Amino acid sequence: MLVIMEKGATEAHVKAVIREIETMGYHGISIPGIQRTAVCIVGNQGTVEDSRLLALEGVKETIRVTKPFKLVSRETHPQSTIIPVGDIMVGGKQPVVMAGPCAIESEEQALGIARLVKRYGAQVFRGGAFKPRTSPYSFQGLGEKGLKLLKKVREETGLAIITEATDCTNIELVEQYADIIQIGARNMQNYSLLRRAGRATKPVLLKRGLAATIEELLMSAEYIMSEGNTRIILCERGIRTFSDNTRNTLDLSAVLSIKENSHLPVLVDPSHAAGRRDYVIPLSRAAIAVGANGILVEVHNDPLHALSDGMQSLYPEQFATLMKEIRSLAV
Amino acid sequence: MLVIMEKGATEAHVKAVIREIETMGYHGISIPGIQRTAVCIVGNQGTVEDSRLLALEGVKETIRVTKPFKLVSRETHPQSTIIPVGDIMVGGKQPVVMAGPCAIESEEQALGIARLVKRYGAQVFRGGAFKPRTSPYSFQGLGEKGLKLLKKVREETGLAIITEATDCTNIELVEQYADIIQIGARNMQNYSLLRRAGRATKPVLLKRGLAATIEELLMSAEYIMSEGNTRIILCERGIRTFSDNTRNTLDLSAVLSIKENSHLPVLVDPSHAAGRRDYVIPLSRAAIAVGANGILVEVHNDPLHALSDGMQSLYPEQFATLMKEIRSLAV
Amino acid sequence: MLVIMEKGATEAHVKAVIREIETMGYHGISIPGIQRTAVCIVGNQGTVEDSRLLALEGVKETIRVTKPFKLVSRETHPQSTIIPVGDIMVGGKQPVVMAGPCAIESEEQALGIARLVKRYGAQVFRGGAFKPRTSPYSFQGLGEKGLKLLKKVREETGLAIITEATDCTNIELVEQYADIIQIGARNMQNYSLLRRAGRATKPVLLKRGLAATIEELLMSAEYIMSEGNTRIILCERGIRTFSDNTRNTLDLSAVLSIKENSHLPVLVDPSHAAGRRDYVIPLSRAAIAVGANGILVEVHNDPLHALSDGMQSLYPEQFATLMKEIRSLAV
Amino acid sequence: MLVIMEKGATEAHVKAVIREIETMGYHGISIPGIQRTAVCIVGNQGTVEDSRLLALEGVKETIRVTKPFKLVSRETHPQSTIIPVGDIMVGGKQPVVMAGPCAIESEEQALGIARLVKRYGAQVFRGGAFKPRTSPYSFQGLGEKGLKLLKKVREETGLAIITEATDCTNIELVEQYADIIQIGARNMQNYSLLRRAGRATKPVLLKRGLAATIEELLMSAEYIMSEGNTRIILCERGIRTFSDNTRNTLDLSAVLSIKENSHLPVLVDPSHAAGRRDYVIPLSRAAIAVGANGILVEVHNDPLHALSDGMQSLYPEQFATLMKEIRSLAV
Repeated sequence: MLVIMEKGATEAHVKAVIREIETMGYHGISIPGIQRTAVCIVGNQGTVEDSRLLALEGVKETIRVTKPFKLVSRETHPQSTIIPVGDIMVGGKQPVVMAGPCAIESEEQALGIARLVKRYGAQVFRGGAFKPRTSPYSFQGLGEKGLKLLKKVREETGLAIITEATDCTNIELVEQYADIIQIGARNMQNYSLLRRAGRATKPVLLKRGLAATIEELLMSAEYIMSEGNTRIILCERGIRTFSDNTRNTLDLSAVLSIKENSHLPVLVDPSHAAGRRDYVIPLSRAAIAVGANGILVEVHNDPLHALSDGMQSLYPEQFATLMKEIRSLAV
Repeated sequence: MLVIMEKGATEAHVKAVIREIETMGYHGISIPGIQRTAVCIVGNQGTVEDSRLLALEGVKETIRVTKPFKLVSRETHPQSTIIPVGDIMVGGKQPVVMAGPCAIESEEQALGIARLVKRYGAQVFRGGAFKPRTSPYSFQGLGEKGLKLLKKVREETGLAIITEATDCTNIELVEQYADIIQIGARNMQNYSLLRRAGRATKPVLLKRGLAATIEELLMSAEYIMSEGNTRIILCERGIRTFSDNTRNTLDLSAVLSIKENSHLPVLVDPSHAAGRRDYVIPLSRAAIAVGANGILVEVHNDPLHALSDGMQSLYPEQFATLMKEIRSLAV
Repeated sequence: MLVIMEKGATEAHVKAVIREIETMGYHGISIPGIQRTAVCIVGNQGTVEDSRLLALEGVKETIRVTKPFKLVSRETHPQSTIIPVGDIMVGGKQPVVMAGPCAIESEEQALGIARLVKRYGAQVFRGGAFKPRTSPYSFQGLGEKGLKLLKKVREETGLAIITEATDCTNIELVEQYADIIQIGARNMQNYSLLRRAGRATKPVLLKRGLAATIEELLMSAEYIMSEGNTRIILCERGIRTFSDNTRNTLDLSAVLSIKENSHLPVLVDPSHAAGRRDYVIPLSRAAIAVGANGILVEVHNDPLHALSDGMQSLYPEQFATLMKEIRSLAV
Repeated sequence: MLVIMEKGATEAHVKAVIREIETMGYHGISIPGIQRTAVCIVGNQGTVEDSRLLALEGVKETIRVTKPFKLVSRETHPQSTIIPVGDIMVGGKQPVVMAGPCAIESEEQALGIARLVKRYGAQVFRGGAFKPRTSPYSFQGLGEKGLKLLKKVREETGLAIITEATDCTNIELVEQYADIIQIGARNMQNYSLLRRAGRATKPVLLKRGLAATIEELLMSAEYIMSEGNTRIILCERGIRTFSDNTRNTLDLSAVLSIKENSHLPVLVDPSHAAGRRDYVIPLSRAAIAVGANGILVEVHNDPLHALSDGMQSLYPEQFATLMKEIRSLAV
């Protein structure tokens, strides 16, 4: 069990809580957070009678840890959350389409693709400035120069911008330039980054890790929300299995499990799951049909010369087809 | 490489082929099949020059084993195959819906459910008479009595019947009573059963094994087809992964890989993948949206008292909703 | 819950049990087995009060199905089982080594390898006469001719023989020729074959399926034992995971879980798990170190020309090293 | 292909290289690192003729990216690396045992356990001060206070200290206090942290991610080494699979694959893999038998009241047994 202290609780309040816990025969550990302090009760078998604790000064509430996530849970927040990004409603009636290249490579490339995806109906432009790459020798992104190009894209096209933050340093920059901060699958359990994202002033899109259960994904979202940022969009992007016909196995039932257990909106990224462009359109259709709130999809004007993930990027005309098919499904 | 002998090839023809193979420096092994004999060439590194072999009497063709499947391959048969079952076209324009209980329990149950699913638009009635169960103490099905009830269902409703054969003994009976013989996921590599199904006079629905790659599934279909039965329907029903939010992880990209590599139609079974009824409708929508040729779905008039898999069976009214939603997608 | 009838129980006894179950508000289904009849109670939520049932004539006992396996369980049989095969004690103090080629190819090959593995200390000769192969065009084994060669191996070397039965037809032959009947990973849930093996007069070695949990493996052993054959040896041979550095991932903790939950002996097959010969010796050492009762290992006198699985077969001199290393560990 | 510049290379040198690459018809991207600049060649199909590039001033060498890791590769460094930590030789003849609690909880606990594991023969003391926990409400470690206790442990017992750094902030502190910096499984692809560890003055122990292939693990080690820190110890700690009998599946073949492909030493952590203490001793035996350079094991003087991972911590007397058994194997 967790005893959540009020924001204005003093050191003395916390100590009194710990003393009471010891009297009850358990052990109390203070966990100071940026926003508030929590006191963790350990050593108990089964449930703890919390009435005495709730009576103490400075105590806001208690959380039974047996249900591991709380703030992101649908149980505590039955209505589905809609997250506004400008005038786009993520989690609203219309599926949201976020499209663009894997990595920002140049102004010409970024603007060229952005105009195309805008024309066909995308609402958000995606593109990486900081790229987490398996090899230290692969192209790692343009960094802040890339972010500036993204800003230009927004100014020229009006598209909202989503781009990835990969550590506690570049998230400062990403927060300044982007409309949505993306946290990638490899960083789903990078708790320092999650906590920092929880103090960000922008919405966060959190991708499911390759080997993460739905509960773990929701726990990672809980890390963000426990720091105060409630604007979280989740994203299924394929899991690692034995199956070798796609790069990862897209688990569309994840959309259902997330919606069952959480009030947060959920998108699907068919590009990273499939790893090949010819599967992206049908998987996008399936994502919308299963009930996802939108898709995150890679589009490149010149996939053959893309600096990363070219194989899975749609050609512009394929993206046009995708948009048409999704619209007919969503109506 | 494999040298396929003609049906009328004699013992002497086979021996001549083996002698020639030895002369080439390799080793030849005769593999007598029910329909024809094949001679397997081993000991070669890389490709074998087959012109001398093709010149011999009794030789029909050679197969390069490097591409492991052949008869089921789209490369050798570019058009998609449509399998007629009565006047139902599996693989045709309309998705086919096969619905019914996990197991046949009684006449009342079977007929009751059959009339319901027929009313809402199902074309094929499913129901197990021989049930492969993890525990020897679980209900194993009614056996031939169940098959007789299925026959009655067809007579009274006009629905085609699909039911599972679990071994080389009961496939004889299933072949007599059913319109489509089902081979379950656990038997996907039961090669004796596959060969027997390859000599059956009825179409076969072959389910993907829980840990089978698409290539292995197609190789199992090749076993069936190599015995002469070309009427094979494939079925994705979820794979075993670490993910614990559903019983198995439905891999909808399998539909795309099967269609890319094979000309055979493919269905999806969302009921066994999910293991819970509330996921069946959205996963069915996704299956149709991704391009499956139909679905195989469990429906029960009294799921709470079903003798097996009740938790994943749809209530009749849910099935009505499912049919309506699928129709709107397929148009 | 399951009501187990005595062997001599009559039809009338069974009916009385079912009647009583109905009175209790549940449903009773009779499951006739070769050895005895069981009555399955369905429709109950939670535990059933079984005193009234145990009082009826012909009732031997009840089994709570919540613990899914019983006869193979260590709970019902706390001492570890030792299975004698001639004068070899499988499950005894000394680890048992079963070695030989993947497939029997010729008399010269079989006898040559058998003499070698005997010289270095193997107690059982392995070699397939019926081979389950992914492709219908791969070498499928010599069939009964192979079994006759195995018989000759036993006569000439004194080694016990283990060979695989792949269906309900060839198990008849295998039972005649072999000292231990092997059931392969692909057939772990071929329940007809398991039931037939349960009526065999020879011990059975049952391999874990590629995607089988320990509970499922033990349930499959329960199928065999429920038919009367108590001489079962289990075998871990690698599971299917995302990891691609070996053909399958050898799960040595399976040895511990099997021994914790069951009284049956367990062997490890490092050859099929690794799929490459240079890993076989260290994995064999690890198998013995973790507590396996022996190993099943592929050895070939001419691996480069083996008709199957040559890549994972040890050279004779490697097998000599393996035996030396295992002996030093086991002391 | 990657063109590695010399440390003293100037901006002008890099530009000349990029110009030459453009002339060859490809695209060159400069990747500035802390230690050196690399120029990545993109747009090439197949191999690039690098003689012209090697002739330019400031160019140190080229790396063909087709083999994704280089510095950690056994190919480029055939002898196995031994990493000295004080007078302990990790990768030397004797297996190294690192033992201690999951988390440092108090001075009494830390010193108590340290004296015990020292007495029984451990050479390194492990204990977390910064704990990456799935839930934001779980005990997150004592932070710097824990590091100070670890320092005291070293002073009083002479044991070397290993403890985890979880982000780019606390690695500064960990580097000051610890003898070995641990990077956990969840951070295996936290590239900012890897790069920072690559500039640390202490050896790094890098754990395999739950869903990481061996190649990905080695690529992560390459990130560290490419920044200059060559003292890397790898660690297998179980992977995520469908198998539910242990928390993760310990993949001992990973030890063999790492040693085959890399010159770095590798340890095994049986405690996190198993998630239960009764499996730790036999899995440790297996780890040593397969050839690991040591083990990392959790020991607690009072596991029932441990603040984290108590279930998998050995009792002191079990640790004594473990040490005895490992010694007898290693001789």
